[in-house]
Amino acid sequence: MLNRQRNISMLGDGFYSRVSLGPKAVIDHCEPLVLRALDQLTRHDRPLAVSDFGAADGGTSLNLMRSVVKRSKQNFPDRPVTVTYTDLPDADFTSLFRNVAEGTRTEDSYLKRYSDVFVYGSGTSFYQQIFPAESLDLAFSASAMHYLSAKPCTIVDHIHSVGAHRDEFREYQAQAIRDWTTILLNRSAELASGGMLVMANFCIDDHGQYLGNTGNENLFENYNLLWRDLNRDQVITDGEYRNTAFQQHYKTVDEFIEPLIDQANPVFQSGLRLVSAKSEIVKCPFRTAFKQGSLNPEQFATEFVNTHRSWTSTTFRAGLDETRSEEDKNAILDELYRRFHSLVLDNPVGHAKDLIHLYLVGRKV
Amino acid sequence: MLNRQRNISMLGDGFYSRVSLGPKAVIDHCEPLVLRALDQLTRHDRPLAVSDFGAADGGTSLNLMRSVVKRSKQNFPDRPVTVTYTDLPDADFTSLFRNVAEGTRTEDSYLKRYSDVFVYGSGTSFYQQIFPAESLDLAFSASAMHYLSAKPCTIVDHIHSVGAHRDEFREYQAQAIRDWTTILLNRSAELASGGMLVMANFCIDDHGQYLGNTGNENLFENYNLLWRDLNRDQVITDGEYRNTAFQQHYKTVDEFIEPLIDQANPVFQSGLRLVSAKSEIVKCPFRTAFKQGSLNPEQFATEFVNTHRSWTSTTFRAGLDETRSEEDKNAILDELYRRFHSLVLDNPVGHAKDLIHLYLVGRKV
Repeated sequence: MLNRQRNISMLGDGFYSRVSLGPKAVIDHCEPLVLRALDQLTRHDRPLAVSDFGAADGGTSLNLMRSVVKRSKQNFPDRPVTVTYTDLPDADFTSLFRNVAEGTRTEDSYLKRYSDVFVYGSGTSFYQQIFPAESLDLAFSASAMHYLSAKPCTIVDHIHSVGAHRDEFREYQAQAIRDWTTILLNRSAELASGGMLVMANFCIDDHGQYLGNTGNENLFENYNLLWRDLNRDQVITDGEYRNTAFQQHYKTVDEFIEPLIDQANPVFQSGLRLVSAKSEIVKCPFRTAFKQGSLNPEQFATEFVNTHRSWTSTTFRAGLDETRSEEDKNAILDELYRRFHSLVLDNPVGHAKDLIHLYLVGRKV
Repeated sequence: MLNRQRNISMLGDGFYSRVSLGPKAVIDHCEPLVLRALDQLTRHDRPLAVSDFGAADGGTSLNLMRSVVKRSKQNFPDRPVTVTYTDLPDADFTSLFRNVAEGTRTEDSYLKRYSDVFVYGSGTSFYQQIFPAESLDLAFSASAMHYLSAKPCTIVDHIHSVGAHRDEFREYQAQAIRDWTTILLNRSAELASGGMLVMANFCIDDHGQYLGNTGNENLFENYNLLWRDLNRDQVITDGEYRNTAFQQHYKTVDEFIEPLIDQANPVFQSGLRLVSAKSEIVKCPFRTAFKQGSLNPEQFATEFVNTHRSWTSTTFRAGLDETRSEEDKNAILDELYRRFHSLVLDNPVGHAKDLIHLYLVGRKV
């Protein structure tokens, strides 16, 4: 979700709101789970320690964190609260600290409303331990844990593991399972006894649905076809096509919950247990606006393509040969998204970026 | 010290090192005080909590913080350490997190060397409470606490309170004393019983010396004369000259220690006590290099002016009328620093930016 405000400055406030709407809806969907987790905490002798892992600029979780602070202050008026937002060092911490202190266009600041609340940032990867052992009460994260710690192999005929050949797919799958174990072991170490974990992660649900694959069109298949066309049209080389792959993997529901229910798993043995897990869909706000007639086909195509340009372009850019100039790279990316725009405009029906997440709750015994 | 790397990219590595040398020397000068404070801590049942207030990108305190972590790990090998760097939201937290994780050109990362060490950033002003009550063990800060929380009045005939008329000076002085009380009360609230505070702050020493006023030339007098010349030459307006003032004040040694020794002072009453206070000088590294012949006059003038352009230009820019274009503002600033360059080149002897600090140690009873 980094830098999602780039390239969209000319699309107006409605677009900005719709961009936030999906991720924010996912986070708001977590609220009952998070508040229930908060109520179930057993340790109250220290300040409440909450963390948002992979928080980007903190904007989409402001509403949730305000609810958390509010509930804590209702239950324990004198208990201080700390909220630590983590992401990679190149995240926009300046916007994060401003958003939390001042609020955003749509969300109020909880710092203004409640006293004795302290906010921090961490630039440490969630593949490492970010907090001292047993110091965290509530670990929250949304739409972050599909990013792998490393790319296990080339995907020869596709740009995402969802379309990889069997052997490649298995390497991505194995990497994702190892990574998920690492993530959970670190969170388990951080959580105090009785501490809770609530996460919404992109998943492959039991119907085989995943982000951008819920209807007639498949987002990653379309990107792959267009990227291959650019190769066929000699805009990019064979090597560039082959070297392009998202460093991410969508795990199944079973893969997500396995470490928390299998007694032989080191995560289970570390004390982290499954409380609940349920996959759900949050409908694409652009698709909804188009269906309702608030966007015409041209507007829909423009906004739809722009909303994923911000998080997909890094991957396509990284696939391009290092010797190309920045201008050259930009021109290729412009062409890719121009073609996607035409694809959508030619047949707008069926394009949607529905968000398929597993809503998972865990507890440290 | 924000963004001090701007505008200096063409001056080479030697300049970069000299820029860091002064502030870093001040911080390294604190090391024996900080390590002694660390040894005097009495609470060891929680992770050691250390903070660097007004840390900018954390580069100049890396050496000190490495020593702190090393000493703590020697004394308590299994005790986790947290280091929280605070600054305003617009500080460069990305560079901070990278510097701490990867080290800088001259300093190693302590995160690479020691395990169970956790680093955070805070974008909360040190005029507010940044940590929960009684949670902090060691509060460190260097060269930050001369920034006032607000500008109390216009300085009609000068650009810094060191040259203000009596009534204006008194308003700045009163603001600085109020602000220092606020700063200390917040640190006192944050510190655990037995916790220690070590700060190096710009001061007016008992000989009347302060930053840039230790020899034949006075940095702020020179800036004032040049800014007034620009007004006389109708480059800037009367209003712009009048409205320009650094939002800072240099306190005397007595003003610094008063709240920590006066039993009627709320800071003393909150439990914060003076351990030691000593003003000392760290010599201007540019002046030293010039005297030793490693810089010729032209190089000295260039580097000397560039080193304070980064932290002075914000103030001069803020004094300019809002209706001016950015190009216009840039041209005026270029002219100001060009004139300062000529001033130094005409008579290089006597220009120095010696750093006069009060090295202050306090303890929370």
